[in-house]
Amino acid sequence: MDFAPDDTARDFTARARAFLDEHVLPAEPELDAQLAAAPGEWATPPVIRDLRERARAQGLWNLFLPGDHGGAGLTNLQYAPVAEVTGWSPRLAPAAFNCAAPDTGNMEVLNDFGTPAQKSEWLEPLLRAEIRSSFCMTEPDHASSDATNIGTSIRRDGDHYVITGRKWWSTGAMNPDAAIFIVMGKTDPDADRHRQQSMILVPRDTDGVEIVRPLTVFGYDDRDHGGHAEVAFHDVRVPAANLIAGEGDGFAIAQARLGPGRIHHCMRAIGMGERALALMTARANDRRAFGRSLADQGVVREWAAEARIQLEALRLLVLKTAWLMDTVGNRQAMTEIQAIKIAVPRAMQTIIDRAIQVHGGAGVSSDTPLAELYAGIRSLRIADGPDEVHLSSLGRAELSPHRA
Amino acid sequence: MDFAPDDTARDFTARARAFLDEHVLPAEPELDAQLAAAPGEWATPPVIRDLRERARAQGLWNLFLPGDHGGAGLTNLQYAPVAEVTGWSPRLAPAAFNCAAPDTGNMEVLNDFGTPAQKSEWLEPLLRAEIRSSFCMTEPDHASSDATNIGTSIRRDGDHYVITGRKWWSTGAMNPDAAIFIVMGKTDPDADRHRQQSMILVPRDTDGVEIVRPLTVFGYDDRDHGGHAEVAFHDVRVPAANLIAGEGDGFAIAQARLGPGRIHHCMRAIGMGERALALMTARANDRRAFGRSLADQGVVREWAAEARIQLEALRLLVLKTAWLMDTVGNRQAMTEIQAIKIAVPRAMQTIIDRAIQVHGGAGVSSDTPLAELYAGIRSLRIADGPDEVHLSSLGRAELSPHRA
Amino acid sequence: MDFAPDDTARDFTARARAFLDEHVLPAEPELDAQLAAAPGEWATPPVIRDLRERARAQGLWNLFLPGDHGGAGLTNLQYAPVAEVTGWSPRLAPAAFNCAAPDTGNMEVLNDFGTPAQKSEWLEPLLRAEIRSSFCMTEPDHASSDATNIGTSIRRDGDHYVITGRKWWSTGAMNPDAAIFIVMGKTDPDADRHRQQSMILVPRDTDGVEIVRPLTVFGYDDRDHGGHAEVAFHDVRVPAANLIAGEGDGFAIAQARLGPGRIHHCMRAIGMGERALALMTARANDRRAFGRSLADQGVVREWAAEARIQLEALRLLVLKTAWLMDTVGNRQAMTEIQAIKIAVPRAMQTIIDRAIQVHGGAGVSSDTPLAELYAGIRSLRIADGPDEVHLSSLGRAELSPHRA
Amino acid sequence: MDFAPDDTARDFTARARAFLDEHVLPAEPELDAQLAAAPGEWATPPVIRDLRERARAQGLWNLFLPGDHGGAGLTNLQYAPVAEVTGWSPRLAPAAFNCAAPDTGNMEVLNDFGTPAQKSEWLEPLLRAEIRSSFCMTEPDHASSDATNIGTSIRRDGDHYVITGRKWWSTGAMNPDAAIFIVMGKTDPDADRHRQQSMILVPRDTDGVEIVRPLTVFGYDDRDHGGHAEVAFHDVRVPAANLIAGEGDGFAIAQARLGPGRIHHCMRAIGMGERALALMTARANDRRAFGRSLADQGVVREWAAEARIQLEALRLLVLKTAWLMDTVGNRQAMTEIQAIKIAVPRAMQTIIDRAIQVHGGAGVSSDTPLAELYAGIRSLRIADGPDEVHLSSLGRAELSPHRA
Repeated sequence: MDFAPDDTARDFTARARAFLDEHVLPAEPELDAQLAAAPGEWATPPVIRDLRERARAQGLWNLFLPGDHGGAGLTNLQYAPVAEVTGWSPRLAPAAFNCAAPDTGNMEVLNDFGTPAQKSEWLEPLLRAEIRSSFCMTEPDHASSDATNIGTSIRRDGDHYVITGRKWWSTGAMNPDAAIFIVMGKTDPDADRHRQQSMILVPRDTDGVEIVRPLTVFGYDDRDHGGHAEVAFHDVRVPAANLIAGEGDGFAIAQARLGPGRIHHCMRAIGMGERALALMTARANDRRAFGRSLADQGVVREWAAEARIQLEALRLLVLKTAWLMDTVGNRQAMTEIQAIKIAVPRAMQTIIDRAIQVHGGAGVSSDTPLAELYAGIRSLRIADGPDEVHLSSLGRAELSPHRA
Repeated sequence: MDFAPDDTARDFTARARAFLDEHVLPAEPELDAQLAAAPGEWATPPVIRDLRERARAQGLWNLFLPGDHGGAGLTNLQYAPVAEVTGWSPRLAPAAFNCAAPDTGNMEVLNDFGTPAQKSEWLEPLLRAEIRSSFCMTEPDHASSDATNIGTSIRRDGDHYVITGRKWWSTGAMNPDAAIFIVMGKTDPDADRHRQQSMILVPRDTDGVEIVRPLTVFGYDDRDHGGHAEVAFHDVRVPAANLIAGEGDGFAIAQARLGPGRIHHCMRAIGMGERALALMTARANDRRAFGRSLADQGVVREWAAEARIQLEALRLLVLKTAWLMDTVGNRQAMTEIQAIKIAVPRAMQTIIDRAIQVHGGAGVSSDTPLAELYAGIRSLRIADGPDEVHLSSLGRAELSPHRA
Repeated sequence: MDFAPDDTARDFTARARAFLDEHVLPAEPELDAQLAAAPGEWATPPVIRDLRERARAQGLWNLFLPGDHGGAGLTNLQYAPVAEVTGWSPRLAPAAFNCAAPDTGNMEVLNDFGTPAQKSEWLEPLLRAEIRSSFCMTEPDHASSDATNIGTSIRRDGDHYVITGRKWWSTGAMNPDAAIFIVMGKTDPDADRHRQQSMILVPRDTDGVEIVRPLTVFGYDDRDHGGHAEVAFHDVRVPAANLIAGEGDGFAIAQARLGPGRIHHCMRAIGMGERALALMTARANDRRAFGRSLADQGVVREWAAEARIQLEALRLLVLKTAWLMDTVGNRQAMTEIQAIKIAVPRAMQTIIDRAIQVHGGAGVSSDTPLAELYAGIRSLRIADGPDEVHLSSLGRAELSPHRA
Repeated sequence: MDFAPDDTARDFTARARAFLDEHVLPAEPELDAQLAAAPGEWATPPVIRDLRERARAQGLWNLFLPGDHGGAGLTNLQYAPVAEVTGWSPRLAPAAFNCAAPDTGNMEVLNDFGTPAQKSEWLEPLLRAEIRSSFCMTEPDHASSDATNIGTSIRRDGDHYVITGRKWWSTGAMNPDAAIFIVMGKTDPDADRHRQQSMILVPRDTDGVEIVRPLTVFGYDDRDHGGHAEVAFHDVRVPAANLIAGEGDGFAIAQARLGPGRIHHCMRAIGMGERALALMTARANDRRAFGRSLADQGVVREWAAEARIQLEALRLLVLKTAWLMDTVGNRQAMTEIQAIKIAVPRAMQTIIDRAIQVHGGAGVSSDTPLAELYAGIRSLRIADGPDEVHLSSLGRAELSPHRA
């Protein structure tokens, strides 16, 4: 249970931090300008392409993927402080390092469950960031808090599968670079509850794939990373070889994908909280009201203290979770993964909200990253299952009488 | 202390409710469509113009203004349930009834402090909704939580005043119809702390008035009501007759304006909370997860109960405040005005946030009004002074030893 | 919906307040001294007997009971501010006015459901405070959150009923003056769920009644009002005429008893909160730390403001509930009764807890009434059903689709 | 930053746990019985003496004291899980292992600052538990949140010091075995603010020492560990050699004493929270209401999940703090010590409070340890400085501009 960063982690963290300070934070206004100059444009902004080139040249690339894939092969525990650094600028840094959702999860799925052909066709270009991808799981007509609750059908028809259904919150799918979609659907509605679902690869340009519309998160369209699309699949026909693993494996693949996804979100969320606290600190020292610096107001001090306490305690819990995933495996770390999935976004939301309050009007505007950080962290409490589902599940396990 | 609506209040409330159901709620998608069809357009959308005509024809007009001004002459207590109805659709209903901020506050200022000439030139067209207006108080470079903290100068120069400074959060000012700005500035920085400020009328088309840029609130540009502008005043010269009341009266006018403004916000906020709860209820009955309706999940029941309790208790406090303003005056109602200013937005924020959570992804998107309601209510906790300033002031009064 | 106190209410409230200030508050140290001087003594302390004589002589007597019973015949709305006054000193004032639970509820039951003989034998002496009483409902072996969940049996045997079972939290039963127990039990376990229970009168001195032991609330034995007893009924035989109303009426009587009981608790709780805030205010002005009065510390101001807001909003909700009970009846006021039952104790608990915090060590000791107030208010969140049961019930009603 | 228990820690923790299960938990009813049988008796109950003998024989003795003092010489990191075990039964286990406050802090003071004569006379018998001790710091007439705020004077008079003042919350002082008091007072009111205070040893039987009265904590007299006394020092004269360290060193000694004291409280508090959760779990599985086990109610699951999350995150923060104290010293760990001092008792209070709620009436009574655990943990939020002082101090440090 040694959480101290080793030499590798220290090295990557320091380089990521330097890259953030030198290249990423200064690029934020550039991103805003590029987006403002190209309304309705969903392709990857040039500033992100530039950052990627730079980052890749420095070896800050594919850091999220354990093992040897041209990336750094970091463990979860080594990756945690690096991912935290990227959380300081969630629109730019994860993408710059090719460590952004949903590509990360999709690459993990292909890496862990893909056939050699699937890997060659889709994983390789993703690892090189030549294409991007989307994950089509959530549906508008079914409560996604229950992951078995899927309306989309994947029907075998000779050498093909035919996909019919409607998805939304397909993150990144507005971006024309998102060349491949991993789609969850039901191959056998009569099978056991957790064996009805399968996952299948659907190239963007397949007939019958309709990008219906972009969704917003609060008022943000998240164009920087390809937005969130509603996607309709009208009898979309793909070769049977596009199925990932076997029929009925969909739920298990989803579960396997979610563990790392959740901890990555939490690692970055800690960085988002740290940035919010840093902004709050700067503002509190800069502003005066009623004859005193805001930093001298009792309530601001209290908020700073509460923020520091939460950050310290929850970072440790994230690190322990990473360490467990590295040492005993994702499945054995399920309690801790659920715990951080619940606790981290919620606590960071409070920190960001208070940083907004200290900034007054600037806080809700786009003059600081806070309001957009808020929108992002608030959504995390819904994505991959709402807090309440995880609380209930964690509580049931805790109360289980044979546990004690 | 009789809060029961009298016949007049009942009549107006019923008519407002019918208008809301028949005309306003169905017009919401139309508003979205018009805004989407005209990106970058800040003028009043046609749907609002149509609603206004209809509402005015029905006498649902200028209801906010006590006394006889071609409006209904409602008391605050009578207006409260009507304003609550308009809170169900804050983008459309207040504007439809010509009861939208900042016009309401500006009309009150002109009504209470304007000269006959000022009234004739600006109040009359505002009462007829021929023009709109903006209130230029908050500044980017000064903590607006302290209302004496104003950097803009209003300098006498012969028969004119010259205004120099920078404002933001000038709501409505992006709309070219906003023909008149009420600007707060300092006429005498050496006077007593509460006598340094004055208010002055600045027509939009005066030389030196620069509409710098629109601001966003959690990604929303609020184009429906003219957005929020940063406005620069570059040595703007207006006739001395444009001063409202006398030099040094600015702070007092601001205070007089804020009382009604705050209670109007709170009345509408109750309606926002009711709508969120109604949406939560509909969704909870409509959706199923884990084999049960969401309405059968313990946590959703708890949220509905908490929402109902807060709505009932805080509505009564708003009504009491209105009754006090009617019977003993705004100044004597200051404690209650502060209390609702603090308590209502905060409680409604929680209700709306939980309604979002029950809706999952739909809740943060624009498929329901919830995320935009959230952005609006969250901003209220900053506008007109952050909660913390009011808590401190209310607490100081409460702890005052000569009170007990 | 006129909550302003009428002349009668104003008169009684003023007299109650004067009595409190002159006689009750000064008697608190005397009560402590009498209790300390007589360890293990459960009879009514002399100071309470004295206060009763004085209060009765002044007509401050049986104020809780609507209608003409030698009391004042106050409505609930009239009684509310009087009961609030008694909440300032919950150990002494309610008992002084013969308005203390559980006697009040028991008198209501006898008044509403008793036969003339039952009234003559038990209600009359209770109204004169010659005896006291206990209500034996809660059982150690059954979750009392579900009021149908009763293990005690009441078995007909010829002209008698035989009671067998075990009760606890029989408030007042340690006091030998508690001459009569109202006992809830099952007469027919096979009847409809809400028709299995009956209530019966059991004189304390009946064979088979065993006062097992006193219970404590936190560390308090509540000797001032007869404590809380565990009581065993070992085949206790009473005449059939002791049954209250008919067999199967027990649940309905319990429900009828609970409404007024709950609002009385809430009225007094508001007074407890006001006293805590008054103590907090006095202390905050009296103490200095770090070169400033505690009243000048931001956090104390915030607490005072929050307390004032909660007190104002919830008092109004209590008054509305009282007004509903007076005008449309207890059953129609059920939503509001539940709302205040949930909201008031919880909010007052926070106020008292913060008053404790401002007092430091004195706050948790017996040098202020705060710690004992805390214990009392905390218990209210369990008594008559835990908050969670009421939240669930209120939420279910709110979410009911046919409601909107 | 390796928090995994090493062999020594694992061994001691396992033995402490076995001792707890075999000897301590079963002795709790015995303690209650002995206290009930001897009202007014403040001496150490026989059951504690017995446990001490057993524990000492097993080497579970003086575990808190780093270094070689006949104890185990555990580091803070090694001691943490052992102390957590003792938190399961705070009335018995810490005393059984001679690891109970205030003796632990007093032994540390003597160990770190005492002269050889002072150690021989007082430390040695304390290490053997032949005597007990008290720490006289808090005063009734001064806000103890400000540790420089001391009214007691320690005046040099020839070869003696004369102590005059009044203390309270002198824990353990009611116990006649408490043979020695460490008293904080001012030797030089004109010195620098942190150099005015000194500490001095006052034997209990010195002339002028008056044990005024016991204090209660939420009704509990804490007789098991000698209660909390108000102590008056009427011109108490002791030899000059009784001064600990030098004149003016009092504040520094207090600070040195507080660090370990605080983390010990936090370690035990984690154990208190674990016990409360274990009790909640057992109860929730045991009780049924509305046709379901309480463990199947959503709200109980949520509470269990929240409890588990808090326990995991805060235990890690306590371990990190211990590790810092061991590796970089108490002074460098000040931020973390403050963080856990604030966060741990507060979180454990919530866990215990909810466990009470799940138990209903049993929870507030003495039938479970919960209400007394609550009283203890609530007091921790006041003792050694209220939460608010620590929040303010931690926040000030966090906001310090030269930090970032």
